[in-house]
Amino acid sequence: MQKLKSHKTFGGRTEFWSHPSRETKTTMKLSSFIPEGPVHGCLIWLSGLTCTEENFITKAGAQRSLAEHGLMVVAPDTSPRGLNLPGEHDSYDFGSGAGFYLDARTPGYDQHYRMESYIVRELVALIHEQFKISRLGILGHSMGGHGALTLGLRYPALFASISALSPIVNPSAVPWGIKAFQGYLGEDRELWREHDSCELLKRGHRHAAPILIHQGTQDEFFETQLLTRNFEEAARAVDQNHKVVYAEGYDHSYYFISSFIGEHVRHHAEQLRS
Amino acid sequence: MQKLKSHKTFGGRTEFWSHPSRETKTTMKLSSFIPEGPVHGCLIWLSGLTCTEENFITKAGAQRSLAEHGLMVVAPDTSPRGLNLPGEHDSYDFGSGAGFYLDARTPGYDQHYRMESYIVRELVALIHEQFKISRLGILGHSMGGHGALTLGLRYPALFASISALSPIVNPSAVPWGIKAFQGYLGEDRELWREHDSCELLKRGHRHAAPILIHQGTQDEFFETQLLTRNFEEAARAVDQNHKVVYAEGYDHSYYFISSFIGEHVRHHAEQLRS
Repeated sequence: MQKLKSHKTFGGRTEFWSHPSRETKTTMKLSSFIPEGPVHGCLIWLSGLTCTEENFITKAGAQRSLAEHGLMVVAPDTSPRGLNLPGEHDSYDFGSGAGFYLDARTPGYDQHYRMESYIVRELVALIHEQFKISRLGILGHSMGGHGALTLGLRYPALFASISALSPIVNPSAVPWGIKAFQGYLGEDRELWREHDSCELLKRGHRHAAPILIHQGTQDEFFETQLLTRNFEEAARAVDQNHKVVYAEGYDHSYYFISSFIGEHVRHHAEQLRS
Repeated sequence: MQKLKSHKTFGGRTEFWSHPSRETKTTMKLSSFIPEGPVHGCLIWLSGLTCTEENFITKAGAQRSLAEHGLMVVAPDTSPRGLNLPGEHDSYDFGSGAGFYLDARTPGYDQHYRMESYIVRELVALIHEQFKISRLGILGHSMGGHGALTLGLRYPALFASISALSPIVNPSAVPWGIKAFQGYLGEDRELWREHDSCELLKRGHRHAAPILIHQGTQDEFFETQLLTRNFEEAARAVDQNHKVVYAEGYDHSYYFISSFIGEHVRHHAEQLRS
């Protein structure tokens, strides 16, 4: 891993890194914050459509809460970069900036768009090697909320805690998810179910810790792309411990994320230190 | 004033505005955060070189502290925009994005680059009309720290409290300041002294409240452009109440600002509520 930048922040350090990735066969970038003093665990933050490794670490204001709780965070980029696959750069919701945290099966994409393996194998190993941390939580926003819920439910032994802000909970049923699944997985809907948090719950995937979700009621994508209530229903039906907070008047922006990131960090701190 | 965007944040609202300016004869933009509940005063945040009305409100993480203390903030753009004066867009440290919070005297610039009058007359009046707040503090970063110190010392009756992060304290003596003063004020160094916080102290300008300054020791501009110790010396020599904190290891970035903005908000809250 090559350190690109380092800024002292709240007594700790905000840093930017790049490294050659085995899974994506590209150079991947990520940001991190490491607090001063003992570190009790690492959160992996997954960002939403169009984001890079920069958005969360500059705009969420998470460092203050992370420093308070002695947690570090790693925020990877949202897709491979520097490629030129067919259709990769044509729209904001597919290809670059829109990896959807799964391993693609479609020709060309299957060689590089392996964001699931990148996160759960390569990044988890890097965190262990570079920072000597193995106690992990996973969280994210929007497409990254989908990533946190699906990877958390698919790999409950890897992640001790899960949370999400305005996640795409039921991608098989909404335009963003359908476009991504068609482009990365093809038309076999059986494959789609393995990357849909509602479907994973129905198929028996569970997590021992309570799953925390915040959803703004004035989120412009709430009714069309996010469908938070479907997750609530699925979780209730199968007795998955969960808490969904509908935050009155909040939208989909980083102003919303910054308002509730402190509660999410505390949620993970409780799970990771217990 | 036209409201361009509004985002619920920490129970209050982060908003973006534009308005036709009498002083600059251009459309000026600004951002604001208004907490929920009673508002005890308004801080005017002045940004540094290259910034717009967006940098502070998206990256400083100030809303959490402002909400805690019941203070609002207004962050204006750093210069007029949409003009095409000679040399206005040729460098990052003069012209657009670099208004230096003074009223220009040089031909062309004197018609529009009136950032001092814009802040102390027009913006102060707008805050009173639009938000019904007249209790004000002023603070800023780098070029904006220079603005906060000089405008605070020049108009002590307008601003009940002053603070700055990595301010240009002695612009007459450093490359950024000399370039700006030559371009906006011409070669008459007597005029320069009225816009240099060290010189203002020497000329008898005082503020009743303690002035708080944070300066990172790893700031890449500390020794060449900021010269914080000159302010300390001048303030000590004339008995201006002040507190300069040298923050070990911090640089010039928003990661530094976000780490100490909470202390600055508390400083202003103490002055504004007393």
